[in-house]
Amino acid sequence: MMEQVRRKLLNSADRCVDEALEGLVRANGGLTILRGHRVVLRSDLERIKGKVALLSGGGSGHEPAHAGFIGVGMLSAAVAGAVFASPPPGSVLATILSLWKGGASGVLLIVKNYTGDRLNFGIALEQARAQGVPVEMVVVADDCAFAEPSKAGRRGLCGTIFIHKLAGALAERGFTLDEIVTRVNKAIKNIGTLGVSLSPCSVPGCLPTFQLPPGEMELGLGIHGEPGIKRSKVVSADEVVKIIIEHMTDSSNKSHLPLKSGDQVVLCVNNLGALSCLEIAVLSRAAILCLEECGVVVARVMSGSFMTSLEMAGMSLSLMTVDEEVLRLFDAETSAPAWPNLSTVSLSGRSLFLEPAEKPDTPAEIDPEGSLSSVLRLVLESVCKTLLEHQEDLNALDRAAGDGDCGSTHALAAHAMQEWLQMQRISGNLGQFLGDLALLLQERMGGSSGALYCLFLSAAAPHLRQSCDGAAWAKALLAGIEAMKRYGGAKPGDRTMLDALCPAVDELMKLSSAAPGGYITILQAAVEKADFGAETTCRLTAKAGRASYIASQHLTEPDPGAVAVAAILKAVLNTLKHE
Amino acid sequence: MMEQVRRKLLNSADRCVDEALEGLVRANGGLTILRGHRVVLRSDLERIKGKVALLSGGGSGHEPAHAGFIGVGMLSAAVAGAVFASPPPGSVLATILSLWKGGASGVLLIVKNYTGDRLNFGIALEQARAQGVPVEMVVVADDCAFAEPSKAGRRGLCGTIFIHKLAGALAERGFTLDEIVTRVNKAIKNIGTLGVSLSPCSVPGCLPTFQLPPGEMELGLGIHGEPGIKRSKVVSADEVVKIIIEHMTDSSNKSHLPLKSGDQVVLCVNNLGALSCLEIAVLSRAAILCLEECGVVVARVMSGSFMTSLEMAGMSLSLMTVDEEVLRLFDAETSAPAWPNLSTVSLSGRSLFLEPAEKPDTPAEIDPEGSLSSVLRLVLESVCKTLLEHQEDLNALDRAAGDGDCGSTHALAAHAMQEWLQMQRISGNLGQFLGDLALLLQERMGGSSGALYCLFLSAAAPHLRQSCDGAAWAKALLAGIEAMKRYGGAKPGDRTMLDALCPAVDELMKLSSAAPGGYITILQAAVEKADFGAETTCRLTAKAGRASYIASQHLTEPDPGAVAVAAILKAVLNTLKHE
Repeated sequence: MMEQVRRKLLNSADRCVDEALEGLVRANGGLTILRGHRVVLRSDLERIKGKVALLSGGGSGHEPAHAGFIGVGMLSAAVAGAVFASPPPGSVLATILSLWKGGASGVLLIVKNYTGDRLNFGIALEQARAQGVPVEMVVVADDCAFAEPSKAGRRGLCGTIFIHKLAGALAERGFTLDEIVTRVNKAIKNIGTLGVSLSPCSVPGCLPTFQLPPGEMELGLGIHGEPGIKRSKVVSADEVVKIIIEHMTDSSNKSHLPLKSGDQVVLCVNNLGALSCLEIAVLSRAAILCLEECGVVVARVMSGSFMTSLEMAGMSLSLMTVDEEVLRLFDAETSAPAWPNLSTVSLSGRSLFLEPAEKPDTPAEIDPEGSLSSVLRLVLESVCKTLLEHQEDLNALDRAAGDGDCGSTHALAAHAMQEWLQMQRISGNLGQFLGDLALLLQERMGGSSGALYCLFLSAAAPHLRQSCDGAAWAKALLAGIEAMKRYGGAKPGDRTMLDALCPAVDELMKLSSAAPGGYITILQAAVEKADFGAETTCRLTAKAGRASYIASQHLTEPDPGAVAVAAILKAVLNTLKHE
Repeated sequence: MMEQVRRKLLNSADRCVDEALEGLVRANGGLTILRGHRVVLRSDLERIKGKVALLSGGGSGHEPAHAGFIGVGMLSAAVAGAVFASPPPGSVLATILSLWKGGASGVLLIVKNYTGDRLNFGIALEQARAQGVPVEMVVVADDCAFAEPSKAGRRGLCGTIFIHKLAGALAERGFTLDEIVTRVNKAIKNIGTLGVSLSPCSVPGCLPTFQLPPGEMELGLGIHGEPGIKRSKVVSADEVVKIIIEHMTDSSNKSHLPLKSGDQVVLCVNNLGALSCLEIAVLSRAAILCLEECGVVVARVMSGSFMTSLEMAGMSLSLMTVDEEVLRLFDAETSAPAWPNLSTVSLSGRSLFLEPAEKPDTPAEIDPEGSLSSVLRLVLESVCKTLLEHQEDLNALDRAAGDGDCGSTHALAAHAMQEWLQMQRISGNLGQFLGDLALLLQERMGGSSGALYCLFLSAAAPHLRQSCDGAAWAKALLAGIEAMKRYGGAKPGDRTMLDALCPAVDELMKLSSAAPGGYITILQAAVEKADFGAETTCRLTAKAGRASYIASQHLTEPDPGAVAVAAILKAVLNTLKHE
């Protein structure tokens, strides 16, 4: 079968670079396009008057690099080539001249170490110089892959972003072109990058840049899919990070980054494209821990997409050893859209954890095993017995409407409550009792029904702390049912437990004005309403809960949740009748 | 063949959520973990004293949501569940209590509209209220997919981020809990989101959430891979965006966002995971243009990864209609790590382009067709003739060492120069002449050799503008050769054109002190050196250029680039001898 060109969300392979630059500029008020060129510049060029302007760029496909790093405190402009291709010298020259005419005191070209970029930026530099513009070039070569680098030298990778930031801060502070070149060339020596990928990427309209079987990874790839140094089975995040950092800092590797215990670093965890943010976060943890285990102080971490390789499912780690002065430059403010929102707190050594607040200062035990406790025990025992007796009926009802576990879920609750009756003291304070029961069901019952019972009880409980007369009960039950409706999203008539509970609670509202002697009569009426409500659910269309996914003609039995509620209320009534 | 579980860069499916949260917190000094819970909080909780604290959260796999949006001016804390699973109420409650104990005047829960989240946050809310904590909940339901939303209502999607921002700004400004709830509930009605995906995603350790054949896309998916509303062939970025925005704003769709000409919006272009940043930029452009075509004013655009679905290759558009007051809240500062660096310039209506600087103010024509012009014409004609004569020899040499096009590339240059001689005036100023020639080769010759000749000429040219005596020539040639070495990265001995050019230029340095009468003798010697240098390249190992990829035993012929240089010099000599 022919290998297929991957479909992408683009309009055309030819226009994608121009459209992406336009998209960036349209989305960011601080940016503008140099007409006729694939060049993005700061829209506030007047602010670089008398300062050194910074120009970077290279092939496209590495977004947000480079144009995303344009802004106060970073680049003044960026020149883009076609995807993975060096930009033409004519556009570089036009940009240099525009920056110079804009009043820059000089222009620094920040170039990644690829022959094409060096030549094309070099040509523009020479031509601009011939026209009297003070221009210099620095070349970033941060790749740590090759133990024996070729003549072309180390490739320029994501560490280039560090240079954009440092040079940007220096330029913003008014340093001269020569001073910036000196400091930047010093900083470049302190940067290293190494990546790994689980997949290739593909230039729009083309086949993938290389093949990598599923389950394999390649170490040390270039950002255009150039070959790396090793293929192996995919290993764990911790192992991948360890391999990368060891290779990067191995002194027998001629392109290693010298790093020793006590050094302070800035770390960049760069998503090459298609890795999930979850993976990037796990890799960030692994990298920080690995560095700290080597005695390295991790001062700052940036993680996200900074210099991508289209949709490559991989990542790179960049390290820059820093002193306090470089760190201040790194921390300087910038308006560049792709620069992350970083804190200036040093990371290594701080405490990661906050202890949770102590449980609230409610009186530890209100009325422990008080006057009501024995009644509550009897009621609960009876409810448990009923639920266990109904387990199979409820499951059978649920098999027709849902996943057939309604009885089992209620049985789980019954067993948990039975255990609780054996092990724990039962508070004689009704509010406390219902609150405890809510927590028990939340932890042990599970499912939406566990959550809904818990909600009902949690919302009802506070109203029965100070008093447990009929009026308090009415308020509590109303609060409970309101909470179920509010958070559960169902209403009476939706074929849920509410169809038994709501009519019962409507009846129980009479408690608020009744004399204590009439309570049982009211409860009796409520139970009948619940029974009737549960029975009539067989005629309802499910509008909430799992049964709502089933066509209504298949639902001829009553809703098991409503049946369970009616059974519980009947058990309560029967116990209280005999007390 | 069994479908395979996708390999990810994680340590284990079970630990990935905890490790990702730890990674985030370790990388950001402003964050801390609530010990024993999957909860991240601001590490500067003292700063929320007397203010409303904001708590959000939900299942993991949507990173950077929600913990990435914690910071001054956004969330105070976020609770995470397992991947795509609602967090337990116990952790939500523990967080509420910690914020309350930390001195918050109240706690607002910002919940996405999923039954599990509503129930679990609801339980914690009721339990916290029972303990006297002022807590409220707002539910975000921004999904515009379903024309007839189910009972569960619209799903909460990426528009939730807008609410984090607005509520955060309100809380930071000291608004009360009730005021924030009122304003946020108003804002929620003005938010809509709709997405599209080209691929499913997979929960770590599990098979993909659904199947989608290559080349197809699904519109209106949920962020957990829940079914959308339509499948079709992948269409262009412009068309995808148009379909999304039309559906989102179609008034016959019951979950549409009301949007009319003249409305002002904030747009969020959200990468669901694995789309390239290039695609996101192209989609941003498409979305802005589509909205502007409808007369909608695009005030701000955020684009990037905000609420992902693991590695889903898709994106969502979120829109929020805003007035000036809401826009000020949106623009307020925040330290949340995942909030992008946005400018506060209104986007629609501004000018996108800067006109390039005019060509520099060099005198338009120095010495047009001056005294030297006729000699230069003869020299160039002779060089062209030589290169065309050597075309096949050079290609043959290159077939053994490279891609066999060295002669053709030089022939391209020759044809371009011949055309130039016919069409253009040849400046009699040597500096101008070499500069013009450099531009011609840059545009018409191509390849590394075109760039290198261009570099040589560009760097040499300025030295021959004011004078063209021997000393000026020596300086010019030296500058040329230095530029080739600097930007090209090769040295003499690397088997390149430098092996002919450098010995020649060494000889030509004698021009600086020689009398004009001796120039031809020096040139004669230089040509001999070039010839000898070119011949001896057959004994060199290639260290730069394309030939460096070939084992040295296969390289027995001289380097074609060096041979070409020697031939060019000989042609120059022969012409000058007769003049």
